Amino acid sequence: MKSEVEQKIDKIARGILDDVKSYTAPVLLTPVRSLSNVEFNKIDGYFKIKDSVKKRTLTASTIKTFAQTLRMMALSKDLVKSEDTATKREAYYVSKNWGDARFSEQPESDAVMDDIEAMLGVNREQMGFIPGEHGGSVAGALTVIDEDFETKSELKIDCTKFGSGAYSIPSSVEHLKFETKAKFILAIETQGAFERLNKHKYWQKSNSILIAMSGVPTRACRRFIRKLSDEKKLPVYVFTDGDPYGYGNIYRTLKVGSGNAAHINQYFCVPQAIFLGVTPGDIDAYDLPTHPLKDIDLKKIKDMLKNDPFIKEHKEWQKALQKMAKSKVRVEQQAFAAHGLNMVIDKYLPEKIKNQKSWLP
Amino acid sequence: MKSEVEQKIDKIARGILDDVKSYTAPVLLTPVRSLSNVEFNKIDGYFKIKDSVKKRTLTASTIKTFAQTLRMMALSKDLVKSEDTATKREAYYVSKNWGDARFSEQPESDAVMDDIEAMLGVNREQMGFIPGEHGGSVAGALTVIDEDFETKSELKIDCTKFGSGAYSIPSSVEHLKFETKAKFILAIETQGAFERLNKHKYWQKSNSILIAMSGVPTRACRRFIRKLSDEKKLPVYVFTDGDPYGYGNIYRTLKVGSGNAAHINQYFCVPQAIFLGVTPGDIDAYDLPTHPLKDIDLKKIKDMLKNDPFIKEHKEWQKALQKMAKSKVRVEQQAFAAHGLNMVIDKYLPEKIKNQKSWLP
Repeated sequence: MKSEVEQKIDKIARGILDDVKSYTAPVLLTPVRSLSNVEFNKIDGYFKIKDSVKKRTLTASTIKTFAQTLRMMALSKDLVKSEDTATKREAYYVSKNWGDARFSEQPESDAVMDDIEAMLGVNREQMGFIPGEHGGSVAGALTVIDEDFETKSELKIDCTKFGSGAYSIPSSVEHLKFETKAKFILAIETQGAFERLNKHKYWQKSNSILIAMSGVPTRACRRFIRKLSDEKKLPVYVFTDGDPYGYGNIYRTLKVGSGNAAHINQYFCVPQAIFLGVTPGDIDAYDLPTHPLKDIDLKKIKDMLKNDPFIKEHKEWQKALQKMAKSKVRVEQQAFAAHGLNMVIDKYLPEKIKNQKSWLP
Repeated sequence: MKSEVEQKIDKIARGILDDVKSYTAPVLLTPVRSLSNVEFNKIDGYFKIKDSVKKRTLTASTIKTFAQTLRMMALSKDLVKSEDTATKREAYYVSKNWGDARFSEQPESDAVMDDIEAMLGVNREQMGFIPGEHGGSVAGALTVIDEDFETKSELKIDCTKFGSGAYSIPSSVEHLKFETKAKFILAIETQGAFERLNKHKYWQKSNSILIAMSGVPTRACRRFIRKLSDEKKLPVYVFTDGDPYGYGNIYRTLKVGSGNAAHINQYFCVPQAIFLGVTPGDIDAYDLPTHPLKDIDLKKIKDMLKNDPFIKEHKEWQKALQKMAKSKVRVEQQAFAAHGLNMVIDKYLPEKIKNQKSWLP
């Protein structure tokens, strides 16, 4: 049976073939990908793409992009059929054998890939294209079910069994299944904080799944958290540094996505995510050492308050950011070490998880 | 029984106590850490630290650093004793409770940590201090033996069982043991190339262990490769992009270490590493698409030829770099995709591994 992606590609290709046969100029329709064609959807909780469509008719001036789009769709179909994958970079190199339709720079092939992604209403990974980046580390009460690419036999990966190490999330996670009795997912900004919690088996004490995002989460990491949370009905608690970057880049991207990739936010955002800490309020509550905010941080806070549709939706975030701007300090995840290396495990996380009033939406 | 680190710390501390008791000004001796105190050791194959020593006597002007050094040593002893770890960042925060001996910026605490590391002749991980960074991904014919931090029971981690995922190397690897029948380790620059080889089980076809370095390898990644190669007598083949960064930063750092951390190169370098590709010679041999070198690349090649003691030691590298400078092009790992996505698995790697003449030292 053909996959959804194959069927969609076939349908578009057949339409173009019919146009050509009946001497009609073929047309490709692509949703417009920009902030002007996006809305913050309160019900679903993420940036959604609106109805504007870019119409590309085959003419002398569009012929190259037109051909590139069709060849990229053909490559995607081949990948999906053979269950293989290619990085965006590899797809660019494959085009070097397309004669005049070859791309001269990767941003060109990436843009065509984004257009097809939006056109088909699927995500790039479903098309067989994977990002070339590490997807995050996982430890705790979770069994990941993967399969052997060649024998198709089932592989059960028990994430409680890796000692000080962890399970490294692959670039594409669509094929993974999960077994878990955990009560929640804890998404952690830094590798360092993750390793401390993993070493002391915080996941066992709290019956949870730990995921290190290592900065702004990659697509694979976001998709993994979303899929796991959806399929196993698990809440997602987010634990980052208490600074504009942790709030506005890491948490915001994880929860509602970003503007320029709105057509795929439906797959990659985690609207059920809740911000556990470190909040500006935690600084006093836990007597944490701080660092002064730089001008650029203060500017970022101002921008967020003024322009970010997600922040504008939530009074609690506005208050938290105003408090931070007023106090002019930021705080890090690792600051708890000032009161003993394991305070974060023994006191902070258990208290915060109980005290839902201290969370941010 | 006390560990080596505990014994060394005790010895220094006792010396200072004796000095104080006998009204002598206590002294700390630290090897000088700079390129001027380094030599490229041809026999061992890495940058070695020479004999210059910095003498720090306790006086009114050195009292703060002196106290900080002692407290940092005490923290290290506590960590080693309790088998716990702290990131460099956490160690900095712990100092916030040291009264006047607190550090005001992390670079200060890092420098003290480096001094102690050099003074004790051990590596920072042995002292209980871990880097806060991801250590690389592993897949293939390897079982990692770790232990449960709490129960001390043995954990066997079979790196053939991660499907499209991988084993994520922890920040500290000193306690790990290995079981393997693999013939070699393949250290790979990009996550993308690693995932392709892993997905198609190249490690099974070639009976090898794949390690993704994701750029310049972290300390944990370098130490993991070194320890695994030493203990299991495995050759290490390195596969990076064919550009000055791949040669001069990734491969050179992995193989011989760096100048400013010479006191720990003995633990972190992999002198047995061999450069498999992509070499400038491969561009013609495999008809690979290239990119023009930038001025900064050409400048880097010049610098390497003129100043890098490792390059100056090896005619083959000089020739390769001169060839690259002349052709003014670089090539990427993923460029093989131009001739079919699996060419790298089916043709390039098998041929290169057979043809040792095409390697670089």
